[in-house]
Amino acid sequence: MTSPLIDGLQYANWSEKVFRQMRAGRVDAVHVTITYHETFRETVLVIEQWNRWFEQFPNLIFQGRTAKDVKKAQETGRTAIFFGSQNPSCIEDDIGLVEIMHTLGLRFMQLTYNNQSLLASGCYEDDDTGLTRMGRAVVTEMNRVGLVVDMSHSGERSTLEAIEHSTRPIAITHANPHDWHPALRNKSDDVLRALGRSGGMLGFSVYPHHLARGSECSLTSFCEMIARTAELMGAENLGIGTDLCQDQPDSVVDWMRSGRWTKQVDYGEGSAANPGFPPMPDWFNDNRDFGNIREGLSETGLDADEIDGIMGGNWLRFFADSFGPA
Amino acid sequence: MTSPLIDGLQYANWSEKVFRQMRAGRVDAVHVTITYHETFRETVLVIEQWNRWFEQFPNLIFQGRTAKDVKKAQETGRTAIFFGSQNPSCIEDDIGLVEIMHTLGLRFMQLTYNNQSLLASGCYEDDDTGLTRMGRAVVTEMNRVGLVVDMSHSGERSTLEAIEHSTRPIAITHANPHDWHPALRNKSDDVLRALGRSGGMLGFSVYPHHLARGSECSLTSFCEMIARTAELMGAENLGIGTDLCQDQPDSVVDWMRSGRWTKQVDYGEGSAANPGFPPMPDWFNDNRDFGNIREGLSETGLDADEIDGIMGGNWLRFFADSFGPA
Repeated sequence: MTSPLIDGLQYANWSEKVFRQMRAGRVDAVHVTITYHETFRETVLVIEQWNRWFEQFPNLIFQGRTAKDVKKAQETGRTAIFFGSQNPSCIEDDIGLVEIMHTLGLRFMQLTYNNQSLLASGCYEDDDTGLTRMGRAVVTEMNRVGLVVDMSHSGERSTLEAIEHSTRPIAITHANPHDWHPALRNKSDDVLRALGRSGGMLGFSVYPHHLARGSECSLTSFCEMIARTAELMGAENLGIGTDLCQDQPDSVVDWMRSGRWTKQVDYGEGSAANPGFPPMPDWFNDNRDFGNIREGLSETGLDADEIDGIMGGNWLRFFADSFGPA
Repeated sequence: MTSPLIDGLQYANWSEKVFRQMRAGRVDAVHVTITYHETFRETVLVIEQWNRWFEQFPNLIFQGRTAKDVKKAQETGRTAIFFGSQNPSCIEDDIGLVEIMHTLGLRFMQLTYNNQSLLASGCYEDDDTGLTRMGRAVVTEMNRVGLVVDMSHSGERSTLEAIEHSTRPIAITHANPHDWHPALRNKSDDVLRALGRSGGMLGFSVYPHHLARGSECSLTSFCEMIARTAELMGAENLGIGTDLCQDQPDSVVDWMRSGRWTKQVDYGEGSAANPGFPPMPDWFNDNRDFGNIREGLSETGLDADEIDGIMGGNWLRFFADSFGPA
């Protein structure tokens, strides 16, 4: 089996077009966001929609549940879709929903999305108070059932405490080093080193607000950043997590940022002057462009095994270690 | 592997005591009712409680999902618990919840519980109008995913239409022949013959309201009734479905009968003079008493293979044919 191609996060406006582009790009597996601020019942409605897509497009996609499904995707020429949540709204205030969501196929859950949650502090709060009492209990339960803790949108202290409290490696599925581009969403060297030491994974984002020079970021700059991060935390702990939000209307970024928690407009990583989805860099527009990243990485001095790992092999190993019961 | 012992329906007040009695009785698998009139979210809360029991008593019980889990139960000396619903309240008005509930482990669902539902008519309604439009759609979806149609509490016409419309054999998990004891819940020879011809299963109930002479019913009478039913519809289509409601307070039978649909008291199979759970016949009080039924059957002239089938082998074959995708 050749080394797999895995994307550690996407939230596209899903359609047959996008699924066909996944196949054209030979993407074997994608961690897709199915829910942000939705309640449990609302999240189930989204899963119902995914079940319709799995029924409608069985030759393009199927639901991934274990690492073996990546191999199955390679063997059958399809893309395995792994579910994730960017906020813990789907478990409401009920720890029993952790196992229920895992049974329904959830494999990643962020403890926060920018704001304080019942579990931890988001990266946009003034004060990060770390894991809450419920947060510690839920991380323990996530460890038990095999639901990966994702701290992409969490604050520094919360992230360090999640790495420390979790008995299994965690993930930051879509973010870049703060040292390269000082966005609130990007991660400090302290966090990245602690993540690497614990065997956790970082997925590099190509969402323009996470990139040095934004939409103008060059492929060379992006790939050299990856190579430097490999020196910082180990190439084996790196993957891609594009945060591709393809074909989404701007109303969707408003739901992501403002949910039902404010009556104002929250611009998140954008601004009043630039409120919508920013244009993608010219070297990554959709699922057919992973080859550009692979080529860019080969210019950096990373060796072929390291590049295979970053393009999917490392996520595959992490999936195998993470998605089953402890 | 010896022939399995399987009970086609129980709704006990679950406890370590009951689980230990299952083991003492060498019961390999039980179809347990997890929900009656509960909404989807309320049903999920019950599954959460079952998840706690699976976590607390891993040496006694585990969740069954496929026929292979019966073999696993035999090999590990535990009881496989298969979920079922006695009413379609858990899917609300949302056909997408059929697959969601199947993913959560539901393997049987009654289309009605005594009353008219969104899907069909219950056996207590004055008029049975058969499968509704949604009923036909839901049966098709249940066939697709592998969720068994159970017509134990449905009216005659609805039951015949379910047998006809379903592309896979259905079940009447807990009822007896009307000819033996003319309760509204017991089934006509027409229904039983149609059920047998279609490869469906009948589980014999020991709930006293379904028994000739009620709590006073003799083991001989019960077993001779089984032997006659074997002649009517084929021994290979028969199993046990005790309807054991062990240790339940009478408030539970009130929930089963009256749910939230009436402000009056509905006595169901009971009466104002006898509103609660009736006493069990002396030859079947709990999971340790299946041996009495087996012995009783051996007095009837049924041969050893037929008795093995009725005590569990037939349910096992039915599970293997029914619980996966079409």
